[in-house]
Amino acid sequence: MPERHPQLNAHGELRHLLTTEGLPRALIHRILDTAAGFVGVADKDIKKVPLLRGKSVFNLFFENSTRTRTTFEIAAKRLSADVVNLNVNVSSTAKGESLLDTIDNLAAMAADIFVVRHASSGAPFQIAQHVGPNLHVINAGDGRHAHPTQALLDMYTIRHFKKDFTQLRVAIVGDILHSRVARSNIHALTTLGVPEVRAIGPLTLLPSGLREMGVRVYTSLEEGLKDVDVVITLRLQNERMRGALLPSAQEYYKYYGLSPEKLALAKPDAIVMHPGPMNRGVEIDSAVADGPQSVILSQVTFGIAVRMAVMSMVASS
Amino acid sequence: MPERHPQLNAHGELRHLLTTEGLPRALIHRILDTAAGFVGVADKDIKKVPLLRGKSVFNLFFENSTRTRTTFEIAAKRLSADVVNLNVNVSSTAKGESLLDTIDNLAAMAADIFVVRHASSGAPFQIAQHVGPNLHVINAGDGRHAHPTQALLDMYTIRHFKKDFTQLRVAIVGDILHSRVARSNIHALTTLGVPEVRAIGPLTLLPSGLREMGVRVYTSLEEGLKDVDVVITLRLQNERMRGALLPSAQEYYKYYGLSPEKLALAKPDAIVMHPGPMNRGVEIDSAVADGPQSVILSQVTFGIAVRMAVMSMVASS
Amino acid sequence: MPERHPQLNAHGELRHLLTTEGLPRALIHRILDTAAGFVGVADKDIKKVPLLRGKSVFNLFFENSTRTRTTFEIAAKRLSADVVNLNVNVSSTAKGESLLDTIDNLAAMAADIFVVRHASSGAPFQIAQHVGPNLHVINAGDGRHAHPTQALLDMYTIRHFKKDFTQLRVAIVGDILHSRVARSNIHALTTLGVPEVRAIGPLTLLPSGLREMGVRVYTSLEEGLKDVDVVITLRLQNERMRGALLPSAQEYYKYYGLSPEKLALAKPDAIVMHPGPMNRGVEIDSAVADGPQSVILSQVTFGIAVRMAVMSMVASS
Repeated sequence: MPERHPQLNAHGELRHLLTTEGLPRALIHRILDTAAGFVGVADKDIKKVPLLRGKSVFNLFFENSTRTRTTFEIAAKRLSADVVNLNVNVSSTAKGESLLDTIDNLAAMAADIFVVRHASSGAPFQIAQHVGPNLHVINAGDGRHAHPTQALLDMYTIRHFKKDFTQLRVAIVGDILHSRVARSNIHALTTLGVPEVRAIGPLTLLPSGLREMGVRVYTSLEEGLKDVDVVITLRLQNERMRGALLPSAQEYYKYYGLSPEKLALAKPDAIVMHPGPMNRGVEIDSAVADGPQSVILSQVTFGIAVRMAVMSMVASS
Repeated sequence: MPERHPQLNAHGELRHLLTTEGLPRALIHRILDTAAGFVGVADKDIKKVPLLRGKSVFNLFFENSTRTRTTFEIAAKRLSADVVNLNVNVSSTAKGESLLDTIDNLAAMAADIFVVRHASSGAPFQIAQHVGPNLHVINAGDGRHAHPTQALLDMYTIRHFKKDFTQLRVAIVGDILHSRVARSNIHALTTLGVPEVRAIGPLTLLPSGLREMGVRVYTSLEEGLKDVDVVITLRLQNERMRGALLPSAQEYYKYYGLSPEKLALAKPDAIVMHPGPMNRGVEIDSAVADGPQSVILSQVTFGIAVRMAVMSMVASS
Repeated sequence: MPERHPQLNAHGELRHLLTTEGLPRALIHRILDTAAGFVGVADKDIKKVPLLRGKSVFNLFFENSTRTRTTFEIAAKRLSADVVNLNVNVSSTAKGESLLDTIDNLAAMAADIFVVRHASSGAPFQIAQHVGPNLHVINAGDGRHAHPTQALLDMYTIRHFKKDFTQLRVAIVGDILHSRVARSNIHALTTLGVPEVRAIGPLTLLPSGLREMGVRVYTSLEEGLKDVDVVITLRLQNERMRGALLPSAQEYYKYYGLSPEKLALAKPDAIVMHPGPMNRGVEIDSAVADGPQSVILSQVTFGIAVRMAVMSMVASS
């Protein structure tokens, strides 16, 4: 069991958060329940709880992402932690130090939590295996592999609006091939008992192996959206649009952009999600992004609470 | 009235600080009075007051300015706020996200105050019009348009040293054309009842419309300085010196540099101000910058108190 | 006496920390004793003491070093100070402001401590001579000149493991010529009464004047390591390896890399130190870096405590 769940301790508690793959259903719900308790903190006059007071959280970003770093920074500060931001490409890595030497070094400063973003799949795992028992690693996105806090905030959002996972049809639309968000969401949705997860995209952006994960594959957005309860639109990376995998952004929008007409094929009360930042007019139409079915900004709000939950849970494991 | 004063709420309180244009005289004095109460905080053993404890201040700098960002960061921390710095050019903007999507996103994290610096005139207004009622925008400089906290700290400095605005002659010297500081100062000085505001500079750096604002225009520094109580020297941007608008820095200094000899034409107790950073030997002589009439460092000290005042006032509006 | 010790106040207390040169032996021990009291803070549940609460610490890095900046940031936050990071090359310096104008400006914001890193030897001294009595300067590395907190944490480490300085042989290995760490360590070791300090390196990387400082010079690593108690390995800067001073990294490792075989020539209980970041396989073999005699990570841990000690001492001087 510790083999299969390197992120859990001997008592089955969350020690690290590395991936949603293999994360037990009960534990996911416990994270979401804990997050529910933190949603209200943002409405208080003093938006702080003292749970991580005197703890040191290091935002270790080996890949630049101001947006994601900000969500963790705010979450940590609302837990009263001390936060240090390290943009590691510009420092020791440039000086030729190895990843694990950087980690050892920061660990020796009595760090409590590393929030790690890295371009290489697996880097947060490598770090988690390396650090001592008092250090906790949270994966903030590694290569094409996983983005578990994004998936958990998506689950929070779905649970908030749809209550019961076991009656849902969820469609994930776009560049599934390169998306750590898609991968992490598929694992979480499956674990939570969603009976029908659909992946929709052009063939060039659909990875092999989706059917083995229990996902239904569609290359037609119209067919794939039929009667779904949840639409998760993925960001189309700019580099894909300029690359060989896609003809153009206009072409992409024509076939896979979520327009009001396309969305009308889903259930009338379907919700629309997007991990941000959005390319309006490419993967999503502004009328949808700003429309009544969009819960995109709720995702952001819940994301702070989910990150507070994860940080407080690993720190007390 | 809310039309003319988008920065005031229905009770006439400061909800945002976007510009000094149209800011009522009584409100400016209230800001300066509030700042006066904060000047002493810097002298205390513990330089902190708990007014913004648990509030989230985002320094949203779409244009780099370590100096200005630092003043707001220090002011927010002395008010016990949590501060997050975002250098936005390197993040979501690069990824193609729109300004208002970035703003919505950060607002959804339960931000309380956005301190906004932007190369485009009007960006902070656009943001202020967009955000919900619990969010407050402070303009930290937008294009050539406005820099209201700089103007307010200048007003604080003038009031501190000269007491009564209604008896003063104030000269603003230099690149008026490109200066948001000049523009914001002219509005504030006029509102506060300064009977004579002068703009001094080469014709190429004087905008049209100054006379309509009630400003007397001089191209001769000697004539313009005669009998003034206050000299506000503007920074000459390096790019102007290399451009077509000016022959050279040496030439500029010869005609518009504030030397002790030139300053002697002002009243003997005239004060000299500069928003910083200074080009010594270009727009100001070191003997003046470091001389007894210079209040340049007082401006900086008062600037922290003024920013604390503005932040605490908008947060409680 | 204030002539020789610009970093001490009239009572012989530490007002600034600029260099280990001329720092009295008793004062070094007092710093290490103070640091000993802070080592335990990292093991507490709440890793904070309120000693610098409400104080403003500015990390003024005119030369980029995320690693060193992080150690000071963590140390200051554990003392409950407010910390502002300024990467000064990208701001006012680029705008042409002079170093001392930048300093005056920040001082006017009621700063308490400047932690200064600068590429120019002597810059922190210049700043210390310039600032008023309530401001304290800590040199975080200036040019090739000094890196006193690194030397003090090295002294802490040696005292921790070896107790008595007066019976030791200490070898410093590598690029002594360009190393501010070597220079600061030699001064500290000599002051603390180490009877035998050795410098080992290729002739091209050994400065003249070592013998005058009481240091024994070796070009043979084998000879130099014989019977030493402490080996301080220096980082080989990448630029040296590509330059004219050294044939190649491989060649350097062959003659001056600390391998287990070479280390066996030292005393069996000799400790191995390195200021980091390490070039494994260049100046140090991984078997040594990760071996039982390595105290490299203890240096990092003690470094936080030493920096807390220095900050709290200057602030209360």
